[in-house]
Amino acid sequence: MKERLTIVKVGGAVVEDEAQLSALLHDFAAIDGRKLLVHGGGRKATQVAASLGIETKMIDGRRITDRDMLSVVTMVYGGLVNKNVVARLQAQGLKAIGLTGADADVIRSHRRPLKNGVDYGFVGDVDRVDGQLLHTFVEEGLVPVMAPLTHDGQGSLLNTNADTIAAETAKALAQLYDVTLVYSFEKAGVLRNPDDEGSVIPLITREDFERYKADGTISGGMIPKIENALQAVEAGVDRVVITLATAIDGQHGTVIQR
Amino acid sequence: MKERLTIVKVGGAVVEDEAQLSALLHDFAAIDGRKLLVHGGGRKATQVAASLGIETKMIDGRRITDRDMLSVVTMVYGGLVNKNVVARLQAQGLKAIGLTGADADVIRSHRRPLKNGVDYGFVGDVDRVDGQLLHTFVEEGLVPVMAPLTHDGQGSLLNTNADTIAAETAKALAQLYDVTLVYSFEKAGVLRNPDDEGSVIPLITREDFERYKADGTISGGMIPKIENALQAVEAGVDRVVITLATAIDGQHGTVIQR
Repeated sequence: MKERLTIVKVGGAVVEDEAQLSALLHDFAAIDGRKLLVHGGGRKATQVAASLGIETKMIDGRRITDRDMLSVVTMVYGGLVNKNVVARLQAQGLKAIGLTGADADVIRSHRRPLKNGVDYGFVGDVDRVDGQLLHTFVEEGLVPVMAPLTHDGQGSLLNTNADTIAAETAKALAQLYDVTLVYSFEKAGVLRNPDDEGSVIPLITREDFERYKADGTISGGMIPKIENALQAVEAGVDRVVITLATAIDGQHGTVIQR
Repeated sequence: MKERLTIVKVGGAVVEDEAQLSALLHDFAAIDGRKLLVHGGGRKATQVAASLGIETKMIDGRRITDRDMLSVVTMVYGGLVNKNVVARLQAQGLKAIGLTGADADVIRSHRRPLKNGVDYGFVGDVDRVDGQLLHTFVEEGLVPVMAPLTHDGQGSLLNTNADTIAAETAKALAQLYDVTLVYSFEKAGVLRNPDDEGSVIPLITREDFERYKADGTISGGMIPKIENALQAVEAGVDRVVITLATAIDGQHGTVIQR
């Protein structure tokens, strides 16, 4: 029987707010067993870029990463956010180790080709995650803390979406562990009624998803989120949980399962 | 018989100059056997701080690290410099892994107490280096790339001199390896005549050092540098080499040995 591993993905809004971060790290430390954290940091990157006089350009919610912006995200994701989270987790008694995809060659990617004529710049689409190496680290008692940066193997770092890092890491580790992937989120889960936090849908399968899409219960930005989650479970991840950042214990929110 | 391990310390001036960095990483990759890199980054930190409107204050060549400056060095040392060096070494075929002292709790320090009334701020004096963990990583085929940041175990990162990181790491690993510690430097070695790059003193022992100090051959800033090197060899490091950044193969420069 495989050991359980919990992967928690936490977004920029949480890691940049001291009270929320503190609570999140406390809750993360309390999760039983093997675990791994993936963080964002986009808002802080935008803020540091602005202080440096570098303009942030987004297309469809994705950051255009020119050479200057790559330096900013390398500083903010790989340095400021990652190392502070690591130091804070050490204070919680976890042997955290910060990793970008370049570290130990853990996530290799390639630069995204033009999409509909849009050049996203130094943005990476993931080729492979070295699950074996992460397994070695985790079995040594380490808790990987992953920043949303990868590398192309030719010396260049690449900005990479944190949700994608979390999903690809979960898939790679699914061969070695029973993986629960927790996406922390600004809502209590996938809601039947967007205005009612009490209307969380407890379980969504592929069948449910198709039905909810057809009847309009699930729409807009939730569609790709759940599609990605379903692809992860179809690739062997035990379950994906979408939940509030204050409820990452795997007992709350919406469970997405095969 | 212990395996050999080479530790190379490279300063800010080299890592921030593209041509020099490129040559250095190439030379580092060419070093036979187990190895570890320690880097600085002070000039880049000063530059980024200035761009952010943060003033750099130095006392006796040491940076005063207030909270804003700690954020800057965390971004620059832990992010920008460290991750770029790691990605570049990957392109050279080395399985580099970037580490601050907080990562995997590898270097624990305490905040420096007031010295002669000077508050250096968030600056760490090293308490211990986890040589066993570095040994595990090195034996897994990883090449640690260490940034000049440590942590206090209570959630705070601390700015820590890169020469000190290199020396303390060398001492911790001296029990497990035959360690050569190479300090790369802007001169060809310790010079008998500061104006003649051909006057490199090939070997310095404690006895030589006392003599050179007495007769004025060694003076000023070279005294603490060589004192630290002698302390490292007296603590079990096989030899320390002071050499040009373009000659880090251990065959050039000044050797300091017991």
